[in-house]
Amino acid sequence: MPPFPFSAIVGQDEMRQALLIAAVDPTIGGVLVFGDRGTGKSTAIRALAALLPPMAAVAGCPYNCDPASPADLCPHCAQGGPRKSQKKPVPVVDLPLGATEDRVVGTLDLERALGAGVKAFEPGLLARANRGFLYIDEVNLLEDHLVDLLLDVAASGINTVEREGLSLRHPARFVLVGSGNPEEGELRPQLLDRFGLACEVATPKDIATRIAVVRARDAYERDPEGFCATHAKDDAATRKRIEAARKRLPGVSVPDDALEQAARLCLALGTDGLRGELTLMRTARALAALDGAGRVTNDHLLRIAPAALRHRLRRNPLDESGSTARVERALAEVFS
Amino acid sequence: MPPFPFSAIVGQDEMRQALLIAAVDPTIGGVLVFGDRGTGKSTAIRALAALLPPMAAVAGCPYNCDPASPADLCPHCAQGGPRKSQKKPVPVVDLPLGATEDRVVGTLDLERALGAGVKAFEPGLLARANRGFLYIDEVNLLEDHLVDLLLDVAASGINTVEREGLSLRHPARFVLVGSGNPEEGELRPQLLDRFGLACEVATPKDIATRIAVVRARDAYERDPEGFCATHAKDDAATRKRIEAARKRLPGVSVPDDALEQAARLCLALGTDGLRGELTLMRTARALAALDGAGRVTNDHLLRIAPAALRHRLRRNPLDESGSTARVERALAEVFS
Amino acid sequence: MPPFPFSAIVGQDEMRQALLIAAVDPTIGGVLVFGDRGTGKSTAIRALAALLPPMAAVAGCPYNCDPASPADLCPHCAQGGPRKSQKKPVPVVDLPLGATEDRVVGTLDLERALGAGVKAFEPGLLARANRGFLYIDEVNLLEDHLVDLLLDVAASGINTVEREGLSLRHPARFVLVGSGNPEEGELRPQLLDRFGLACEVATPKDIATRIAVVRARDAYERDPEGFCATHAKDDAATRKRIEAARKRLPGVSVPDDALEQAARLCLALGTDGLRGELTLMRTARALAALDGAGRVTNDHLLRIAPAALRHRLRRNPLDESGSTARVERALAEVFS
Amino acid sequence: MPPFPFSAIVGQDEMRQALLIAAVDPTIGGVLVFGDRGTGKSTAIRALAALLPPMAAVAGCPYNCDPASPADLCPHCAQGGPRKSQKKPVPVVDLPLGATEDRVVGTLDLERALGAGVKAFEPGLLARANRGFLYIDEVNLLEDHLVDLLLDVAASGINTVEREGLSLRHPARFVLVGSGNPEEGELRPQLLDRFGLACEVATPKDIATRIAVVRARDAYERDPEGFCATHAKDDAATRKRIEAARKRLPGVSVPDDALEQAARLCLALGTDGLRGELTLMRTARALAALDGAGRVTNDHLLRIAPAALRHRLRRNPLDESGSTARVERALAEVFS
Amino acid sequence: MPPFPFSAIVGQDEMRQALLIAAVDPTIGGVLVFGDRGTGKSTAIRALAALLPPMAAVAGCPYNCDPASPADLCPHCAQGGPRKSQKKPVPVVDLPLGATEDRVVGTLDLERALGAGVKAFEPGLLARANRGFLYIDEVNLLEDHLVDLLLDVAASGINTVEREGLSLRHPARFVLVGSGNPEEGELRPQLLDRFGLACEVATPKDIATRIAVVRARDAYERDPEGFCATHAKDDAATRKRIEAARKRLPGVSVPDDALEQAARLCLALGTDGLRGELTLMRTARALAALDGAGRVTNDHLLRIAPAALRHRLRRNPLDESGSTARVERALAEVFS
Amino acid sequence: MPPFPFSAIVGQDEMRQALLIAAVDPTIGGVLVFGDRGTGKSTAIRALAALLPPMAAVAGCPYNCDPASPADLCPHCAQGGPRKSQKKPVPVVDLPLGATEDRVVGTLDLERALGAGVKAFEPGLLARANRGFLYIDEVNLLEDHLVDLLLDVAASGINTVEREGLSLRHPARFVLVGSGNPEEGELRPQLLDRFGLACEVATPKDIATRIAVVRARDAYERDPEGFCATHAKDDAATRKRIEAARKRLPGVSVPDDALEQAARLCLALGTDGLRGELTLMRTARALAALDGAGRVTNDHLLRIAPAALRHRLRRNPLDESGSTARVERALAEVFS
Repeated sequence: MPPFPFSAIVGQDEMRQALLIAAVDPTIGGVLVFGDRGTGKSTAIRALAALLPPMAAVAGCPYNCDPASPADLCPHCAQGGPRKSQKKPVPVVDLPLGATEDRVVGTLDLERALGAGVKAFEPGLLARANRGFLYIDEVNLLEDHLVDLLLDVAASGINTVEREGLSLRHPARFVLVGSGNPEEGELRPQLLDRFGLACEVATPKDIATRIAVVRARDAYERDPEGFCATHAKDDAATRKRIEAARKRLPGVSVPDDALEQAARLCLALGTDGLRGELTLMRTARALAALDGAGRVTNDHLLRIAPAALRHRLRRNPLDESGSTARVERALAEVFS
Repeated sequence: MPPFPFSAIVGQDEMRQALLIAAVDPTIGGVLVFGDRGTGKSTAIRALAALLPPMAAVAGCPYNCDPASPADLCPHCAQGGPRKSQKKPVPVVDLPLGATEDRVVGTLDLERALGAGVKAFEPGLLARANRGFLYIDEVNLLEDHLVDLLLDVAASGINTVEREGLSLRHPARFVLVGSGNPEEGELRPQLLDRFGLACEVATPKDIATRIAVVRARDAYERDPEGFCATHAKDDAATRKRIEAARKRLPGVSVPDDALEQAARLCLALGTDGLRGELTLMRTARALAALDGAGRVTNDHLLRIAPAALRHRLRRNPLDESGSTARVERALAEVFS
Repeated sequence: MPPFPFSAIVGQDEMRQALLIAAVDPTIGGVLVFGDRGTGKSTAIRALAALLPPMAAVAGCPYNCDPASPADLCPHCAQGGPRKSQKKPVPVVDLPLGATEDRVVGTLDLERALGAGVKAFEPGLLARANRGFLYIDEVNLLEDHLVDLLLDVAASGINTVEREGLSLRHPARFVLVGSGNPEEGELRPQLLDRFGLACEVATPKDIATRIAVVRARDAYERDPEGFCATHAKDDAATRKRIEAARKRLPGVSVPDDALEQAARLCLALGTDGLRGELTLMRTARALAALDGAGRVTNDHLLRIAPAALRHRLRRNPLDESGSTARVERALAEVFS
Repeated sequence: MPPFPFSAIVGQDEMRQALLIAAVDPTIGGVLVFGDRGTGKSTAIRALAALLPPMAAVAGCPYNCDPASPADLCPHCAQGGPRKSQKKPVPVVDLPLGATEDRVVGTLDLERALGAGVKAFEPGLLARANRGFLYIDEVNLLEDHLVDLLLDVAASGINTVEREGLSLRHPARFVLVGSGNPEEGELRPQLLDRFGLACEVATPKDIATRIAVVRARDAYERDPEGFCATHAKDDAATRKRIEAARKRLPGVSVPDDALEQAARLCLALGTDGLRGELTLMRTARALAALDGAGRVTNDHLLRIAPAALRHRLRRNPLDESGSTARVERALAEVFS
Repeated sequence: MPPFPFSAIVGQDEMRQALLIAAVDPTIGGVLVFGDRGTGKSTAIRALAALLPPMAAVAGCPYNCDPASPADLCPHCAQGGPRKSQKKPVPVVDLPLGATEDRVVGTLDLERALGAGVKAFEPGLLARANRGFLYIDEVNLLEDHLVDLLLDVAASGINTVEREGLSLRHPARFVLVGSGNPEEGELRPQLLDRFGLACEVATPKDIATRIAVVRARDAYERDPEGFCATHAKDDAATRKRIEAARKRLPGVSVPDDALEQAARLCLALGTDGLRGELTLMRTARALAALDGAGRVTNDHLLRIAPAALRHRLRRNPLDESGSTARVERALAEVFS
Repeated sequence: MPPFPFSAIVGQDEMRQALLIAAVDPTIGGVLVFGDRGTGKSTAIRALAALLPPMAAVAGCPYNCDPASPADLCPHCAQGGPRKSQKKPVPVVDLPLGATEDRVVGTLDLERALGAGVKAFEPGLLARANRGFLYIDEVNLLEDHLVDLLLDVAASGINTVEREGLSLRHPARFVLVGSGNPEEGELRPQLLDRFGLACEVATPKDIATRIAVVRARDAYERDPEGFCATHAKDDAATRKRIEAARKRLPGVSVPDDALEQAARLCLALGTDGLRGELTLMRTARALAALDGAGRVTNDHLLRIAPAALRHRLRRNPLDESGSTARVERALAEVFS
């Protein structure tokens, strides 16, 4: 059954914008989505992945290596031999809450260890997610050490395995997408800070939208193929927009006054460290690329700042307004 | 000893309606039954399963595959060879509270692993429950990660096994039925929300009903065969009604005004997300099918709304009335 | 050393009545005995078992199968071969507090698994207790999941084993007898409700009885054989009474007005569900059979109601009187 | 280095009386000693054991079987072969707080299991203690299930092993001696009740006694052999007194009025159950035997009652006097 | 990708001074860095290590032995054979929070143990860090026993392994660098005291610096090689300064009046023990060596005292000012 | 690098006196040192051990047996064969906080068990410490069962191993030295009581001493050999004093009036049991031997009483003065 089409998603603009930015620049550090249950978070990620062009990968490589990448960075490809190219869909890997570190990171292949007496590596979920998406539902319930590990890998693009006498590194570049309901357990500030973007999703409040969502969902479930056909053209347009933005990205400039505004904004909000500013710069650049623009403007900063900063605020006991309101107040102040 | 006949169940109308709907459309997401001890919850499920026509299944397939289904979705049938059809009773599988994840999901067949040195899969309870019912008594005491896993599988119809070097998927479509006493431990809102219907059962309060229940139970235990014979005709009628409803289901329409009423109702109750509306639409459709109707009407919505929504309400500290009362108040308001 | 004779037990009438009823109808769901230490609970059960006629059992069958039962319900007997009958004493199996689930339920026979490479079942305490008694001292300190498991098995008469690749069922019909001191840890209401009868025992308060008990105990310990010979005739009479009651049981009728009184009584006490009424009916019927009566009368209900109901009452914060007092008040009200 | 001589113990009369009674009748259920640190509890037990005549035991039997006992009660002797008699010292076995149940009860002999593939039993501390003493320092810190197990074995004289496919019973008759400081953790009432006697020991308060103890200890440590030689004659006299009492014990009678006084005393103190009276009767009988008397008199009851009863009192919130004071008050009342 | 250049680090003077001192005298006991997230702590350590000249090490030695060191202190080199010299970069080893003691300390090489039946040692992270840096992010969240172990090894320069029948010692001299956020868990005073220096880092507050940091980071990420080339000359100058200081260090004198001032300072602050004074003396000496001075002066003490002492203060409930303020007040007092 | 010389230790007189006494009479039950961090506790013990003459030990014996001792007390020497004498330094064994019981007590040698199939014993830290010192830093953080075990072994001089089918005893006579900071976790009174002596150490308060300590430490670290040479003569004198005291010890007498004073003192302080008096007597005797005196006088009692008694006081809620002050008050009273 084909996934729900990205273009058929009703509403949820901020989440869709964040996913598109992550598709253009996967190094921004993951996307955190929080909000109501049943608002289609998982559906949106699968939809985006399905929309992306299949990627060229080395046939038989468990790490989905790009045939154009250096062979010596991958334990499989480094063994030599031909690297035949093969088209594969962009992977979306689910990391279930109860997953062991072994399963995530990979582990000793016991079958071969006991049989042939060799230390073979059995790749884990991180290997499967390379060049794709890793999705964690209820990331706020995941054990700290796993989230930590994931964000480290997502930041460096490399999974370093040091256990049971194994010692290897393999590429693991992916967009980490976490969803969570802040009412059911908080993320440590340190972890929050390492997510690139944080979006809020909510149940639509107007009846027409609600009916539209329910109808779409029902139509899709009763006739998946027919429903997807209807939205094929819109999905193709989005795919092209992403491909164009990826090409344009290295050339997009960030003028000094944009950086100054970003710094003023972070100072006004009192965010710790400089990750907020770095992320603002990078995501604004990706947004500009999606827009087809050659340089970052205040408009890009304004559009992406809430998602880039709202999860980096210290709790302020004297200011009970929500994070989004506080970011918007600072935006108004700095950009007025 | 034959199971207690479904037709001989005294009272408990809401639970029986919910089970019939689940028999007609097993995709609605499980049935949660809560209430007093000793009110025949387990009996009712076994009774319903026994009443259903035996199903055609591939002989020797541990997943009870439908011979008409594609062979390649099942690890057993995909191995090729003839798929002989065989009649099997609809399974009812009990999931005991202390069950390990291994036993539920399936695990490596150690005997064959040690003996023949191959990684064979030993199917678990989810495999056995395919195309039948999975019953969990005191689901509120079950560990969160298991319930989570079960609802995921129940929603997707597929059990994905990734452990100890095993990697396979097998069909696992079943009606999940959970029972619980809300006084002995609460379900997380997120889990509650994923059950399709929630019914309340209670000890009957009038003496005649109580005597009828006790007499029936005693009669059944002293002479099971005789007692079942007495109710065979009624059970056969119920079976036909289910079969007819299954055929009629795809053709039942849901008019826009019914959807609008469903949306109004959920807005009035402030349920999170849109699962409430989706479930209302689907269960009303199944109820219409059981009624022999061609389209969903307000009457269907009214009859199924309490079971479809009462477990999706946020706790309201200013409104201490029970969930059922709140749903009924909203129904009165929206449908007046 | 022969067990203490049942007839030599001084006092403790309610406990003795409950054990006799369980000997006549082992399906009533177990007997719970609570009260002071050192009041001979364990002694009474062993005494009763010793008094029962030896049972005919299949020689070599670890489940003590009745040679007259269908062979295919037992993993041992189902393997075919002759089923030679042998006389065995009625077993009394102690379940120690620290017993593992493995030991209770049975487990993989590791010796044969490692040696012969076959999955053989090593029967547990439940197998040994089949057709006899299973005794748990301080049942209130037993882990919940074990008590739960035991009551399920005691109710169904079947032990279902699903673990480590084993999958078998064997007969396990026994009278579960639990003792406990309510001051040292409470039973969950749900578990309490599944015991058929609950008796209170107490230290005798009059000096003559106390001396009689101590003398009897001392006489028994100094000359077990001689002491038992003295009570052999009384024990034989009790044995005959039990045997006669077992034969009479199926023919004892329960008139509607007795059931109505039972329902009134349970309504007056507000017991959850209908297990109270079912147990009242069954235990009154067994009591009638012990009395040689053909039908249940109010007298039987009155005599057995405290033991059948006192453990099923909800805690009533406004009524601090003990359970027994509350049952007796309700009896007075309903039967006045 | 020879143990400290029993006759050289200064003071601590109650503890010495209790140990002598246990040496005469080991079935009284163990001795509990509580009080100050550094008061020679461990020394006294070792001293008593060393004073007893060496026992005749089957050579090579790990259970120290009496050659005169039936061979079929012991897993070793039941294998047939000659049972050569050998003199062995009466064993004193220490049970350290951290001992595992395996080590106490015995376990599968892994070496033979892995090597020869047979299930051999490796006897534990209970086997080594048969016919001797088992000493537990700080018994109040021992895990409940171990104390429970020990008292059960001490009561029945049999260690029943049911684990890992082993199923055997071996004789385990010993005097359990526990010491504890009540300030550092309490014993459950149920356990307290199963100790036969409970003694209090305290640091002597007069200087002459203190110097005598310290001098004796120093003399012993500087010249163990010489010190023991000095006390050899007194130790021999005590040994003869014990041997004579053991022979006399079966003939000592307990008149009805003694039993009545015992019952009155227990009623006055409100002890639970009848273990208090049984122990009073038995220990008074052993005391009479040590005295060379033919029947139990009030004097014996008076001398042994504090040790037999002080640990069986319920806490009385209205009476803050210590247990010993309460027993003595009751003695004064009943025997006045 | 080459590491970020040390010379391109903007601000963070105190951390840079501490790292330079540790590079000159690695025996000072580690550097603790605490403060805001995202302030480049990890970057600075990697930058410093990359700047140091490659070290001569024995080829194939897992402990990076200096070819000039005695062979018999290293389990690898002690096996004899030629010790070929090889240039290696100074290692920076990350110790992740979840690391097991096995992985840190080294462990039995199971592969060889099972295969060849020999007890071979598999070196751990401590071996890899020899002669380099060991970095622990969020050291305040590390389990106490690991930090303890690390500081012991860092102090003695030797890793002693005693486990699973292994018994060996290997050199493990490294600079331990821990970072932590004091808001997320405190270090035990005992551990704090064993770190040589403790630095505070903070997010820069002026906009120009912030832009400079973000620009540098972005420039580096977009063109690592080009960026590094720009700073190569400054890095080379720093390298020379370190090399000169290492040579000068043994000749730097510490006059009595400097020691007296150090003692006065520690007395004024009430630090426990004398580690504060020892560290002050050693770090001031290293600072003098970096400065090219021949003797320690008050200026050196003043510059290093905050980092050497601020983590050794007892909490003073009457003085709520921060540690740095208290050290500075004491400095003003003592040096006025 | 040679250890720091004992004679170069500045101050800390009480600790040095206690260590000397333990060197003369190792049976006094261990030394507890508590106080500030960084006050050279570990250094002092190593210094003392290094100062002692090397001991004659059986070559190859893992228990350091004295060639003059009976061979049959040691599992190694009892195997027969020649017992060649060899000089070994007096061992100082560190017991790290995280040590397992296996490592302390010794364990089955798995390598030989798996390889040769024999149960060989692999000696633990207790074996290595025989005839030397066992040092535990932060003994107050050690698990109770380990301290208990250690004090038992230290008292008896024998390590009894009963585990995994092993059953052996080996000599383990050592001076247990524990250090602890009372602010970081208390010792159980029972354990405190079993340490022979307890000393307090503190950071020196006068500047000259502080400078002396720091200078000495620095001089030692910069030129260990030269520093040690400077103190070699003083160390030799101390060694001779210890050797002379060991020879004199058996002849030192303890007059009755000294014992009476000891008893008065303990009564005045209300210490439990008589361990206080025994220790006072023994340590005063060793002190007299160190002094070259032939009998214990009041002066010896006065000098050693604080260290022998201060850790045996009950907490007195009405007397908040420290233990040392209370001992000194009692001394003043008793000896006035």
